[in-house]
Amino acid sequence: MNIITISREFGSGGRELGKRLAELFNYDYYDREIITAIAAKKRLDDDYVEKALESHSWQTIPLTFRHSFSSINRIQSVQTNLLVEQKHVIEEIAKAGKNCVIVGRNADVILAEQKPFCIFVCADKETKIRRCIERADKGENLSRKEIINYMQRIDKNRAKTREMLAGGKWSDCSTYHLVVNTTDWNIKNLTLAVAEFVSRWFGR
Amino acid sequence: MNIITISREFGSGGRELGKRLAELFNYDYYDREIITAIAAKKRLDDDYVEKALESHSWQTIPLTFRHSFSSINRIQSVQTNLLVEQKHVIEEIAKAGKNCVIVGRNADVILAEQKPFCIFVCADKETKIRRCIERADKGENLSRKEIINYMQRIDKNRAKTREMLAGGKWSDCSTYHLVVNTTDWNIKNLTLAVAEFVSRWFGR
Repeated sequence: MNIITISREFGSGGRELGKRLAELFNYDYYDREIITAIAAKKRLDDDYVEKALESHSWQTIPLTFRHSFSSINRIQSVQTNLLVEQKHVIEEIAKAGKNCVIVGRNADVILAEQKPFCIFVCADKETKIRRCIERADKGENLSRKEIINYMQRIDKNRAKTREMLAGGKWSDCSTYHLVVNTTDWNIKNLTLAVAEFVSRWFGR
Repeated sequence: MNIITISREFGSGGRELGKRLAELFNYDYYDREIITAIAAKKRLDDDYVEKALESHSWQTIPLTFRHSFSSINRIQSVQTNLLVEQKHVIEEIAKAGKNCVIVGRNADVILAEQKPFCIFVCADKETKIRRCIERADKGENLSRKEIINYMQRIDKNRAKTREMLAGGKWSDCSTYHLVVNTTDWNIKNLTLAVAEFVSRWFGR
């Protein structure tokens, strides 16, 4: 079974790379599917699960959600439960024994024993901002400053979760097999380059 | 003109990767050749130039060299002159206009305008130690602890020079196009994987 995990900076194009790699290799693809599985198991709303897993303090959970709970402790405990559930879902994916690409959620740490090929995807700041603007939903008119703040908050949270799970730095390149910088690449071409690299790894 | 630069952690196999890439592509290869060029220009000993460029404090220059100079200031100024000379030599290499691989010496920063393909090579600690032991000169019986100390000192100096030249972190993966981890790879096979990746970059 070949597992490829993709950790990525927000706006770097890591998700697109993961999706294209899965298509090219005909592998299963897991990203938001993990959130949906957790939400179904816990009978919660997908958006709530996603936001709760991306946050590390109750302040960042939208007020609409915050009102549902009686105390900060309760929210933190819900977050911890969701992280545990996320771990279970990822372990179940691996147990299925099928080749797959998993984007984010520290799958590389959770599935370390299965020896996945671990990729980290980064890009320079301007590339990430441009990508965020291009991919924003219609009507979502965030300013440049708001985009930068959002990017920084998401990446900070990802780094925190990783530190909690693995004790290591999220962007520490030596914990991955390959770090690719999407700046100045067309992701479609980059996918072919990464695919060849990965094939040599699995075939070595 | 295609330039590939290789920055590397000590013991990671970056030099071997660079040499093999140059052979595979039939590119010129520069590594210690740069030291030799500086030494010839400055009428200094190769080993002295190498040690002076790798050090950032007079304490780390061997006593035999230290005795030649009258003060710390004098040594620091020699080091700065050598760094400037190194920059010139690297710029001359680029001016020659031939495809090449340059290992180390912050060539990626110095030649930024020529848009080289920049690789950072890392490996986990045990892999690096094993590599250092395997490649030690006959009669060079360093203990494990001595090897670790040496590795750390060299990498610290490389990081310092980079910070001085580029203002950025040496191991900050987003400043490279590609970061490869040689752990669990045979460098010969890894070279083929990297070569394919680089070819797609230059052909994009």
